[in-house]
Amino acid sequence: MTQQWLENIKWDERGLIPAIAQDYETGKVLMFAWMNREALELTVSLNRAVYWSRSRSKLWKKGEESGHVQKLHEIRIDCDQDVLLLRIEQVGGIACHTGRNSCFYSVLKEGNWQADSPVIKDPSQIYQK
Amino acid sequence: MTQQWLENIKWDERGLIPAIAQDYETGKVLMFAWMNREALELTVSLNRAVYWSRSRSKLWKKGEESGHVQKLHEIRIDCDQDVLLLRIEQVGGIACHTGRNSCFYSVLKEGNWQADSPVIKDPSQIYQK
Repeated sequence: MTQQWLENIKWDERGLIPAIAQDYETGKVLMFAWMNREALELTVSLNRAVYWSRSRSKLWKKGEESGHVQKLHEIRIDCDQDVLLLRIEQVGGIACHTGRNSCFYSVLKEGNWQADSPVIKDPSQIYQK
Repeated sequence: MTQQWLENIKWDERGLIPAIAQDYETGKVLMFAWMNREALELTVSLNRAVYWSRSRSKLWKKGEESGHVQKLHEIRIDCDQDVLLLRIEQVGGIACHTGRNSCFYSVLKEGNWQADSPVIKDPSQIYQK
């Protein structure tokens, strides 16, 4: 079976594409990560977000340690075919490794980045293995 | 005046940071681009989105040709300080060079990327200079 949709993608020089994860209900932008071809294929076939961890150089099935899986509702691509937008359901309501709903919890205010979102669960409770 | 918030940013190996532009009212993700230090400083001082065009290797004051300026309402940074989220007001309602509201107008459906958002204005009418 040809997978034309996969062939359309413009990978960067490292074979990666940026992926934005957005809550499909609230519209909140939850996180930003990267995918390689295998991660994207798995994301679509498993119907959950699978990223490529650049720091660990391995596939990262989001939620495999934390349980905070991202169920895929819709996947979009931009006009240049080089950025993905995932509309997802965030299991547990926590996308960020700090225990917050979104990774974008700091806002620029009075010349400083200020956190304005609560920690829902202490990271030591999330990653206790 | 020290600009500590600027010093906190983790630029990539090219001196860039990804920036996601989101409509501050609808929550719709409109586009994705890159900023260098100067672009980010200008974005904050001018209160409108200024990106770094990698293809043209120059500053890109969004809307300078099209009039489709992005007025900055809020700027956020992620937990790793290496991705920005701009909550903006999209003047003219068109962020994409194809004349659509958002660049993410194609959705994966039945094994193909399918456009599901209308062209609001013909690009030849936008870039007529």
